[in-house]
Amino acid sequence: MGTTQLESVPEPKYWHLKTVLSEALDSEFSVGEILPNERDLAARFGVARATLRQALEQLELEGRLQRRRGVGTTVAPPRVGVAVGTEEQAWPGAAGDAWQPVDCAEAVPPAAVADALETGRDEPVHIVRRSRMSHGQPVAAELLYIPASSVPDLTAIDAPSGPARARAVLRELQHLDLEGQDRAVELGSARADDAKELDRLPGAPVLVVTSRFLAGGRTAALSVATYRADTCRLTFKESGGVEIDHGPERRAS
Amino acid sequence: MGTTQLESVPEPKYWHLKTVLSEALDSEFSVGEILPNERDLAARFGVARATLRQALEQLELEGRLQRRRGVGTTVAPPRVGVAVGTEEQAWPGAAGDAWQPVDCAEAVPPAAVADALETGRDEPVHIVRRSRMSHGQPVAAELLYIPASSVPDLTAIDAPSGPARARAVLRELQHLDLEGQDRAVELGSARADDAKELDRLPGAPVLVVTSRFLAGGRTAALSVATYRADTCRLTFKESGGVEIDHGPERRAS
Repeated sequence: MGTTQLESVPEPKYWHLKTVLSEALDSEFSVGEILPNERDLAARFGVARATLRQALEQLELEGRLQRRRGVGTTVAPPRVGVAVGTEEQAWPGAAGDAWQPVDCAEAVPPAAVADALETGRDEPVHIVRRSRMSHGQPVAAELLYIPASSVPDLTAIDAPSGPARARAVLRELQHLDLEGQDRAVELGSARADDAKELDRLPGAPVLVVTSRFLAGGRTAALSVATYRADTCRLTFKESGGVEIDHGPERRAS
Repeated sequence: MGTTQLESVPEPKYWHLKTVLSEALDSEFSVGEILPNERDLAARFGVARATLRQALEQLELEGRLQRRRGVGTTVAPPRVGVAVGTEEQAWPGAAGDAWQPVDCAEAVPPAAVADALETGRDEPVHIVRRSRMSHGQPVAAELLYIPASSVPDLTAIDAPSGPARARAVLRELQHLDLEGQDRAVELGSARADDAKELDRLPGAPVLVVTSRFLAGGRTAALSVATYRADTCRLTFKESGGVEIDHGPERRAS
């Protein structure tokens, strides 16, 4: 923002360094390249290592750098746009769904989920685990909570567990009349199991998308999807939206 | 996730501590209450301070705790749902818009913005700064980039600067026929000026919403809005969506 004169605010040292580093990344490094070690970088820019580390953390938050175990810090590719909103309402598992079923279990959901589903706090629900790939990489993991009352005709005989069971539950869900859905996006931290699936460390920042599917005047299914915040940009299409080319949307700083 | 048996993954120590702390927050502390200091907390839970600090950082990412300068670590109130998607397309500044104009300037935008607007890299555009309040607190800051070609009839005479100028630019924008809009959400870090406006430290994690407004087959305006990630949950309404009560959506962990 160095070129706008809207307001002049003194910037902390690491912030200035971040801008300088960002320019160096553009001009001297290519995607995937490994950065010099912290000692060398701190020496080159004449800053303390603590300041350098703060600047590197900022660039990681912004998706410019990736820290990878056993590799070091590399220059990140541009974030990938992942479509979250859809023009048309559809149940999970409907045709064209980007998610792949992984597993299915019956278990008691977290209390907040039970409250949203209006099931009892000790009542088991179907929990479908799904994953989403983009460009050959896992980008998101989902837990989909479905009360038994939403799939009354489901039988336990055909497929007792695994992806086949997940597909059976989703197939039954399609029989309900979908009345509406809403979504919320918030910052979260990766749970250990999601982190493993997304090739991240537990606690890494993630974008959590909670979707509610409404049928019969209540929440018939609740999805909690965890997207990698380092590689993903979530895209939403508005009603009546016209397709627009994906231009560079990296936030300039 | 302690009650589901989908997959058993060994969890790091700070992760287990986080779960324990989270339960303690629910049962022993109320919103706004100041936590004991790190030394006392580490002693109580029998962990090293580094482990404690990691757990506190996780809880901060999840919006359970707030770290405030000169106050300490306090128990955060539940995140506030802030509506981002709208049923109907509308230009910024149209009736019912939640944003307040703060300022307006003419300046060269960042290169990525210039590319999206298809303006030259040295061409100044109108930059409207707006802010958004929710429950009496600033929750988001926006920079809205509008090329001169989108507001051809704007005169410099009536209002040369400030909020009045911002309103004049937005008024002119309404004359265009809005053909579509799209949005993307990604993780970012607060710029110094935004951080000040949002009462955060520079570099704090934020949710960056980029919106493109299409008219005449091109991007007629581009908005980059920075939402506080600690206090906000961004809500999107789908097309044809039915209003659903806001239940507890805190991600259970």
